[in-house]
Amino acid sequence: MSYTVAIVGVTGAVGQTMLQVLEERKFPVRELHCFASERSAGKTVTFSGETVRVERLAPGVFRGIEIALFSAGSARSLEFAPQAVAAGAIAIDNSSAFRMDPTVPLVVPEINAHAAKGHRGLLAVPNCTTIVMVMALKPLHDAARVVRVVATSFQAVSGAGAQGVEELRSQTLAWAKGEPMEARVFPHPIAFNLLPHIDVFLDTGYTKEEMKLQNETRKILEEPGIRVSGTTVRVPVFTAHSVSVHAETERKVTAAEARALFERFPGLRLWDDPEKSRYPMPILAEGQDDCFVGRIREDCSLENGLAFWVVGDQLRKGAATNAIQIAELLIGRPHAEDQARH
Amino acid sequence: MSYTVAIVGVTGAVGQTMLQVLEERKFPVRELHCFASERSAGKTVTFSGETVRVERLAPGVFRGIEIALFSAGSARSLEFAPQAVAAGAIAIDNSSAFRMDPTVPLVVPEINAHAAKGHRGLLAVPNCTTIVMVMALKPLHDAARVVRVVATSFQAVSGAGAQGVEELRSQTLAWAKGEPMEARVFPHPIAFNLLPHIDVFLDTGYTKEEMKLQNETRKILEEPGIRVSGTTVRVPVFTAHSVSVHAETERKVTAAEARALFERFPGLRLWDDPEKSRYPMPILAEGQDDCFVGRIREDCSLENGLAFWVVGDQLRKGAATNAIQIAELLIGRPHAEDQARH
Repeated sequence: MSYTVAIVGVTGAVGQTMLQVLEERKFPVRELHCFASERSAGKTVTFSGETVRVERLAPGVFRGIEIALFSAGSARSLEFAPQAVAAGAIAIDNSSAFRMDPTVPLVVPEINAHAAKGHRGLLAVPNCTTIVMVMALKPLHDAARVVRVVATSFQAVSGAGAQGVEELRSQTLAWAKGEPMEARVFPHPIAFNLLPHIDVFLDTGYTKEEMKLQNETRKILEEPGIRVSGTTVRVPVFTAHSVSVHAETERKVTAAEARALFERFPGLRLWDDPEKSRYPMPILAEGQDDCFVGRIREDCSLENGLAFWVVGDQLRKGAATNAIQIAELLIGRPHAEDQARH
Repeated sequence: MSYTVAIVGVTGAVGQTMLQVLEERKFPVRELHCFASERSAGKTVTFSGETVRVERLAPGVFRGIEIALFSAGSARSLEFAPQAVAAGAIAIDNSSAFRMDPTVPLVVPEINAHAAKGHRGLLAVPNCTTIVMVMALKPLHDAARVVRVVATSFQAVSGAGAQGVEELRSQTLAWAKGEPMEARVFPHPIAFNLLPHIDVFLDTGYTKEEMKLQNETRKILEEPGIRVSGTTVRVPVFTAHSVSVHAETERKVTAAEARALFERFPGLRLWDDPEKSRYPMPILAEGQDDCFVGRIREDCSLENGLAFWVVGDQLRKGAATNAIQIAELLIGRPHAEDQARH
């Protein structure tokens, strides 16, 4: 069996990574269609050594498509993902458009593969930071029930797409030449700076990005009572997101037990030998499909608390890899769990 | 009245800032002596338009010194601060050597000026990240008693001294030229990366830096029961430290009340208008004596919780400015509180 696959938003940072990951994982692609906005139509991309022409995303393009991977922003997903489904495709959407729709499964294959079963053609990939965090919360939750989480994220510029990456690059190069930095994508310079501002602000003072950490975690873990307070921060790092997590559990989990839980969870790599300066870092996770967890310690401020630090490539497990793992799940490929253990 | 002042460690990042801050604040210096290691002896520094020769730090140098500002690391403070005191000077120490000594006041002038009164010649400046965090915790604590804090720090490379600044600079320049980065000061590259590792690791898995947040906060706030769980992270930022704080208080504090409390606290600037992309950032705090607080919100995961983001220049309020404010306090200058309200 092989499939006619579409990538919507192929020229973006996630779209480009989707091309790579499909190829690396030898996803059974019979035919690949690449879509983007009018601006990019006519460009070409390379897939498995062949040149593929980028087509303009427009009504009618999904005829014959079996699997459509969307990463072109919420507005495009809202408009076109239902069209893809209506044309008979399975749509796997990387935007936030449908994540909280109760009829749409929100899937991290290592965690809630079963949720995919009830899909109606459309499935959603969670927020990138949520995926990285929940990959470590899940084994802890299964063992000891997580009740409250305080999370502070350190998010790479790739989370704002290819233009976010370009912004950090060009600002840093300007600095190196002694020239002024220009801020186009973010409201302030990001090179050598930090912006505690991702997505829009709500009346509560939280950002939408921060509330995704709570809302999506609840849906993925199927635990509507779990409480997550987040602070999400853009940092001058290219592609990996890091999260400082302080979790409170119903029963105490020792650091040793947590290490054992993390170590055997698929898709998660224990990287915790601080004496040897071994802990997760963005430069370690970049280009990797697994998330890395370390700095594991029993919380000194709480009886049943555990603190740790988890890092994952935002473009891969945070987006493209997770989307393609969902596709693998749907076509009945060996479980993503096994794939992840390379 | 004017004083014979010494700076020990004048060639370091904090020592250089001490020179600037003494000058800016017109501290009444009659005579300035600058000390450093043998390697730097013979160099010159400029103070108030005059050239001052750097002398080698050695026994006997403190004769005639009235105020000695130490920022040359714990080993040098342990050896020489008691000598300065024995010679009749007041020693104000920026290292961690004496901070937890019960006979040594640990002073942030806006917070616990009264603690300085009992000094025996030696006073300590708290850890830079602790100062930035506690500047915002204090008004909250006075109003509603802080019982538990979860803090994640984003610490600038200047916290590792002038060589930390040089490391970020040279790694970034190497990247700009397409050359490999060399890590000399930190165990891994810091440019475009994050290191969840500051100071040494303890058996509990926490770093010493993380435990300073709890231990020093307890001493400064005179609240031995306060619990602080920290995650301290080195980030590719030059000189300002940022802290994501999630605080639990005995009674509920609304966001509006917190804003009012922060706004009237000396040395703290309320910078909290997220709709206008106005929030504290390292590039805002760099070169400023005040700390900036924003992103204030009632914690969605806790009844009596408040989350906020506080940023301060590590070399200034986190070190040099705080040290000189202590000196001003001791010589009976108008309160640091008033000075800070410029």
